[in-house]
Amino acid sequence: MLPGAGADRGAADYALVGAPLDASTSFRPGARFGPRRVRQFGQQFDDYDHRTDQHFTDCSVYDHGDIGPTADVAEYLTFLQGTLSDFDSEGAVPLLVGGEHTVSVAGVRALDPDVFVCLDAHLDLRESYAGDEYSHATVTRHALSVADEAMVLGARTGSETEWDRANEDDVTVVPPEDVADWTPGFDDQQVYLSVDIDAADPGFAPGTGTPEPFGLEPRELHDVVRAVAPHAVGFDVVEVNDRDDGQTATLAAKLLRAFVFAHADQR
Amino acid sequence: MLPGAGADRGAADYALVGAPLDASTSFRPGARFGPRRVRQFGQQFDDYDHRTDQHFTDCSVYDHGDIGPTADVAEYLTFLQGTLSDFDSEGAVPLLVGGEHTVSVAGVRALDPDVFVCLDAHLDLRESYAGDEYSHATVTRHALSVADEAMVLGARTGSETEWDRANEDDVTVVPPEDVADWTPGFDDQQVYLSVDIDAADPGFAPGTGTPEPFGLEPRELHDVVRAVAPHAVGFDVVEVNDRDDGQTATLAAKLLRAFVFAHADQR
Amino acid sequence: MLPGAGADRGAADYALVGAPLDASTSFRPGARFGPRRVRQFGQQFDDYDHRTDQHFTDCSVYDHGDIGPTADVAEYLTFLQGTLSDFDSEGAVPLLVGGEHTVSVAGVRALDPDVFVCLDAHLDLRESYAGDEYSHATVTRHALSVADEAMVLGARTGSETEWDRANEDDVTVVPPEDVADWTPGFDDQQVYLSVDIDAADPGFAPGTGTPEPFGLEPRELHDVVRAVAPHAVGFDVVEVNDRDDGQTATLAAKLLRAFVFAHADQR
Amino acid sequence: MLPGAGADRGAADYALVGAPLDASTSFRPGARFGPRRVRQFGQQFDDYDHRTDQHFTDCSVYDHGDIGPTADVAEYLTFLQGTLSDFDSEGAVPLLVGGEHTVSVAGVRALDPDVFVCLDAHLDLRESYAGDEYSHATVTRHALSVADEAMVLGARTGSETEWDRANEDDVTVVPPEDVADWTPGFDDQQVYLSVDIDAADPGFAPGTGTPEPFGLEPRELHDVVRAVAPHAVGFDVVEVNDRDDGQTATLAAKLLRAFVFAHADQR
Amino acid sequence: MLPGAGADRGAADYALVGAPLDASTSFRPGARFGPRRVRQFGQQFDDYDHRTDQHFTDCSVYDHGDIGPTADVAEYLTFLQGTLSDFDSEGAVPLLVGGEHTVSVAGVRALDPDVFVCLDAHLDLRESYAGDEYSHATVTRHALSVADEAMVLGARTGSETEWDRANEDDVTVVPPEDVADWTPGFDDQQVYLSVDIDAADPGFAPGTGTPEPFGLEPRELHDVVRAVAPHAVGFDVVEVNDRDDGQTATLAAKLLRAFVFAHADQR
Amino acid sequence: MLPGAGADRGAADYALVGAPLDASTSFRPGARFGPRRVRQFGQQFDDYDHRTDQHFTDCSVYDHGDIGPTADVAEYLTFLQGTLSDFDSEGAVPLLVGGEHTVSVAGVRALDPDVFVCLDAHLDLRESYAGDEYSHATVTRHALSVADEAMVLGARTGSETEWDRANEDDVTVVPPEDVADWTPGFDDQQVYLSVDIDAADPGFAPGTGTPEPFGLEPRELHDVVRAVAPHAVGFDVVEVNDRDDGQTATLAAKLLRAFVFAHADQR
Ligand SMILES: [Mn+2]
Ligand SMILES: [Mn+2]
Ligand SMILES: [Mn+2]
Ligand SMILES: [Mn+2]
Ligand SMILES: [Mn+2]
Ligand SMILES: [Mn+2]
Ligand SMILES: [Mn+2]
Ligand SMILES: [Mn+2]
Ligand SMILES: [Mn+2]
Ligand SMILES: [Mn+2]
Ligand SMILES: [Mn+2]
Ligand SMILES: [Mn+2]
Repeated sequence: MLPGAGADRGAADYALVGAPLDASTSFRPGARFGPRRVRQFGQQFDDYDHRTDQHFTDCSVYDHGDIGPTADVAEYLTFLQGTLSDFDSEGAVPLLVGGEHTVSVAGVRALDPDVFVCLDAHLDLRESYAGDEYSHATVTRHALSVADEAMVLGARTGSETEWDRANEDDVTVVPPEDVADWTPGFDDQQVYLSVDIDAADPGFAPGTGTPEPFGLEPRELHDVVRAVAPHAVGFDVVEVNDRDDGQTATLAAKLLRAFVFAHADQR
Repeated sequence: MLPGAGADRGAADYALVGAPLDASTSFRPGARFGPRRVRQFGQQFDDYDHRTDQHFTDCSVYDHGDIGPTADVAEYLTFLQGTLSDFDSEGAVPLLVGGEHTVSVAGVRALDPDVFVCLDAHLDLRESYAGDEYSHATVTRHALSVADEAMVLGARTGSETEWDRANEDDVTVVPPEDVADWTPGFDDQQVYLSVDIDAADPGFAPGTGTPEPFGLEPRELHDVVRAVAPHAVGFDVVEVNDRDDGQTATLAAKLLRAFVFAHADQR
Repeated sequence: MLPGAGADRGAADYALVGAPLDASTSFRPGARFGPRRVRQFGQQFDDYDHRTDQHFTDCSVYDHGDIGPTADVAEYLTFLQGTLSDFDSEGAVPLLVGGEHTVSVAGVRALDPDVFVCLDAHLDLRESYAGDEYSHATVTRHALSVADEAMVLGARTGSETEWDRANEDDVTVVPPEDVADWTPGFDDQQVYLSVDIDAADPGFAPGTGTPEPFGLEPRELHDVVRAVAPHAVGFDVVEVNDRDDGQTATLAAKLLRAFVFAHADQR
Repeated sequence: MLPGAGADRGAADYALVGAPLDASTSFRPGARFGPRRVRQFGQQFDDYDHRTDQHFTDCSVYDHGDIGPTADVAEYLTFLQGTLSDFDSEGAVPLLVGGEHTVSVAGVRALDPDVFVCLDAHLDLRESYAGDEYSHATVTRHALSVADEAMVLGARTGSETEWDRANEDDVTVVPPEDVADWTPGFDDQQVYLSVDIDAADPGFAPGTGTPEPFGLEPRELHDVVRAVAPHAVGFDVVEVNDRDDGQTATLAAKLLRAFVFAHADQR
Repeated sequence: MLPGAGADRGAADYALVGAPLDASTSFRPGARFGPRRVRQFGQQFDDYDHRTDQHFTDCSVYDHGDIGPTADVAEYLTFLQGTLSDFDSEGAVPLLVGGEHTVSVAGVRALDPDVFVCLDAHLDLRESYAGDEYSHATVTRHALSVADEAMVLGARTGSETEWDRANEDDVTVVPPEDVADWTPGFDDQQVYLSVDIDAADPGFAPGTGTPEPFGLEPRELHDVVRAVAPHAVGFDVVEVNDRDDGQTATLAAKLLRAFVFAHADQR
Repeated sequence: MLPGAGADRGAADYALVGAPLDASTSFRPGARFGPRRVRQFGQQFDDYDHRTDQHFTDCSVYDHGDIGPTADVAEYLTFLQGTLSDFDSEGAVPLLVGGEHTVSVAGVRALDPDVFVCLDAHLDLRESYAGDEYSHATVTRHALSVADEAMVLGARTGSETEWDRANEDDVTVVPPEDVADWTPGFDDQQVYLSVDIDAADPGFAPGTGTPEPFGLEPRELHDVVRAVAPHAVGFDVVEVNDRDDGQTATLAAKLLRAFVFAHADQR
């Protein structure tokens, strides 16, 4: 259980679900240990958040535990989507902890947002990767089957085809150097916020599957999470693995909490 | 390239193929780094083998490099099988380096042995695992579709169904405590020898996907490899990952060389 | 939760309690991560045990979670003792997972055995260590306040005073080289079995607070655990930390399961 | 010995004391290895400091070695305070290397400053933590028993009670984003400077007991150390452990040297 | 082979050479693993570079493999120089991957540039170090035997003698805080660009032999590499070792690719 | 200082000297950290040795610290030899802690034994290696320039030329499987005992430069050290590096102590 996430399911405003999928990681595997690491490195934080004057234990977060992957990824996503939809129906905002980025597909399908906002080094706009239509590199593409538009903040790499796709009207790419100045303008749109931890520079998040230099600073991720949270109907943080000294999971756990504090603050 | 494996393909007596499959590892992933690790930790050995009075560089080993997995494991195995069959036709004994144990299925299919001899902590006699018919836990089962019989040396765990299957006439299980006294009696049978490095005790091979205590000592593996090699038409060493300080890859690389020396010695 | 330990408290035959005390470790700290590591590295094992023809999930093990230490160790031990006594009253055999060896004091006090059997590199017969009467080096001494006699298997080091104390009639020391030949003769005595993982040679268990060379092989620990289990009213495995590649926790988790299988087999 | 700290005690202007206390670390232990790590990772630096045109070996630093903790922390702090007072009387500025932050209590008590300046992610203003009045989370509170005021630079987290306490007149909190613009105005006040390395972002200092994201950059710590040093009567750097690749100890060792160079430059 | 570096030697525009020299590393050895690490961590990058609209596989890079050191460093440098000269004659720009910084001496001698531009924490202007005239700390000094001038970007430490030498007309030192504003003005001068990865802050590049805090951010290195590349006749990246979680090699591999993209873009 | 090695030089019976040479390590460097590691992992042992009824602190061991290498290895060995000769003249038995095996050359030259007894996986009988006459692979050859004969216990690999040399009358090779039954018969010969830690199986000593499987168990090394010690005029333990979790240094430190206890016991 994530420390402080002791709410009962029935009464919860937020529902944390671990999704340790680790099937398509192309370089360094270990995303399956993400939920475990995030819970472990989320235990040393103060319960109190000075910025919003709230306690995490008062935010009514329920930890549902992990939903273990099966060999058929499509089936797994369907099952995961079902669980997240249930939480949505029950009035609890899902907090999904990956696992590889692919799990966001379940989140987006369950919550049907208007906008998919993603912090990511990668465009993830492929149709498939290495013959796999559910590769982590296809997430934003899948999201656009559901959402009207996608915004990828911190993106700095992709295939030529992905960049072409990113030029279309329904995709906004904010390169790392412009993220600090980015502000959301969502009006009444419902947003799904996905944090691929590789958006951060590898100096801050080396424990991830496909690290990409020249990324965001932690405070930039923090600012985006807090700015987007009030508009969000769902959240995930993904691509944390166990191949570092804990920096990555510490950052991920903190961003998850920052989401909850900022979201709860505007309820 | 494995140091010393500098033969040309046409002239080679042995053909090393890396098969970095890492799809079904159920616990600790990283088998994809096995070929890299084995090549790296195989570089500090003396070229000369005192026991057989041979030099590794004289054993005519060709290093074919790695054959990278694709998303469809069945397809991958078929392709891998084709490559290994080619080497067999060319007169080169395949030396397969995993990757997860599943790659042995390609080896067995390519070489069509009479007997499948396997050093393994696990029976690997499942029909499928977690919905995956090509899980690493199904290898011996697949091998029995090709070979007449299977011998699993060092086995100490399996499901109840696997142990039932192991009781049938075509399977011989030699528990760890009896391996030291085991001697092969193959007559003219052709043997495929598969070394799942988790046959060794985790103290000697911690860098593997599903470590299982109470295993073999390195010298016991060594003795088996040397005893079986003269009868072998193919060899693999699998389930080495990068999650240790190199012990596991060092042992695997040494066993591979021991196979070559013992096999070449009786040519 | 330890995989397979899904019994409800009321119906359980065994009750696992994590005790992440890490206060007196004199050399390498991290015993606090022992329960987490044992649960993590206990997840890849087969449910079925061939030796006793049982499934772990049928052994009715309840995982109570961890009881977190407080600053006052004496108070903590009293609280822990209370919990273990409760389980004992409820008919569930406690399975304590340390944390440092000091937690065994709570186990012994709760279960009031006739004999304290301990696998340990160290005598742990000090009155105090570095001014601390609850140091991990005092465990056997504390146990002798409760039990009539103590047996330390695999012991190979201690202070001169400890060795003098070990010469008295109520202590039996079995040095590592004699453990393989040791057999218990307990008649109707009730036994508490404590496994300090440093009994094993550091090659097999490097992840512990005070590693001591020239120790036991894993199979020797295994044999002792299975031989003693039928006589045991309580069990613990302690001194596992997170400073290795998982070998130590894997061994500890396996020994805990071996205890359950052997104990349940004679019920 | 810290390289370059070869002065004799009688003639020294600075006295380095290792204080490997590791008793109350609440999350990741290992602060006991801080002095060892700082000395090890302080050995590759050039002796010469271009900024102040000084050599470290000319700065007259004496390395007193470590003062090993005893089980009673209050007693240990009293002993440590005595040693530091002796150095102060002898005209040597103490350079304390932790160990956990608690050791600063001994430093402050020995040197009786007017102002306690602290680089820290945490307010450390608790009365006690987990029942421990000498927890690392109480340091600033203890310091305020001695000093007239406390300034915590880089603080970003604390309990609600700590933030309330921080609102009182004798505490100044400078959040991370304002540290770059902070300048000291100490007049003739005597200052004690304490560097809790977790003030730095975990990307730069992952090897610490309670990492907290969104922290300072190394240059910001550097600027504070150099600005405060001329006013300082004592210095410490604490909370470095051995759970990283050396980044944290390298930074800590460099900051300690920067303190010496800046302090010596104004003598 | 570096992924994407599949050009044939005869047709190549760039020739990558690994130079795993690890003889004079004064603190943490392992630079010999630099070429291996750079190739490994260079495999997860997209082939396409959006900034220059090029594919790496189209840039015609040939990977020559490693040239293994011999005991006599002077001889080794001569041999390495010969190889690099050959590539230069063949019209391929050498891309040297260290190994310790000393290998740059071979690069500079082979290519005879007008200007030696170096990203480095250290001045490397010693005549010798620890009695070794080919120490990594002498590289810029050796370069000045060939080039007319040297520019050291990001330098923050050196001996007093080195700083004196740096004051002469043929050396320009740009301290870390000024690198962001630095722009090259090379006219028609031929430049050799050497990237000692320790120019980066240890938070971003902990895996190096002599880490030095208060260094550059990855984007600053990136900007320099792209600005200098169009003027360069040769390139190296050095001092990457294997003592981290991959951050350093990832950054180095990315900078090497950035060099190729920027250089090819202006061809 | 090695814990317990607090004797003054003048009064010492044993003199420990660290020799962190790390020049010729052909595979994994880090032997330079051997003395540091041995001292660190030698600190958790009990002072008392039950087997010989002695305290280490009573054995009169002086720790001289390290003698740092210079670039010219021949010069370094001469200087080191001088220091060791001085200790010999003063009546203190040298205890040399490497560093690479090459440092034994200084030990043998200083002490001029009749017999060189070496625990080693390697014959170390080369004339030179990679052009280096002072490679670690030449140690036994150098020793035979001084001693009348050499015995290599646990040797299992070497070049063909080395094995030929080993066949001559002045060399005895005891393969690993025969070491348990080996007993010395030295009469009045003076012996130098050198422990290359790679004699142990890599499962027990992974932290070494050139690990070689199928080696000795720790108890076998222990027995040899105790059997030879009474005849020894000098001792070293070498080839420990920092690339493991401490197993190797723990074993090395214990063997060094075992030597002292056994030697002192017969004085
Ligand atoms: Mn992504
Ligand atoms: Mn990504
Ligand atoms: Mn298998
Ligand atoms: Mn297996
Ligand atoms: Mn104990
Ligand atoms: Mn113990
Ligand atoms: Mn603090
Ligand atoms: Mn703090
Ligand atoms: Mn340099
Ligand atoms: Mn440098
Ligand atoms: Mn040797
Ligand atoms: Mn050796």
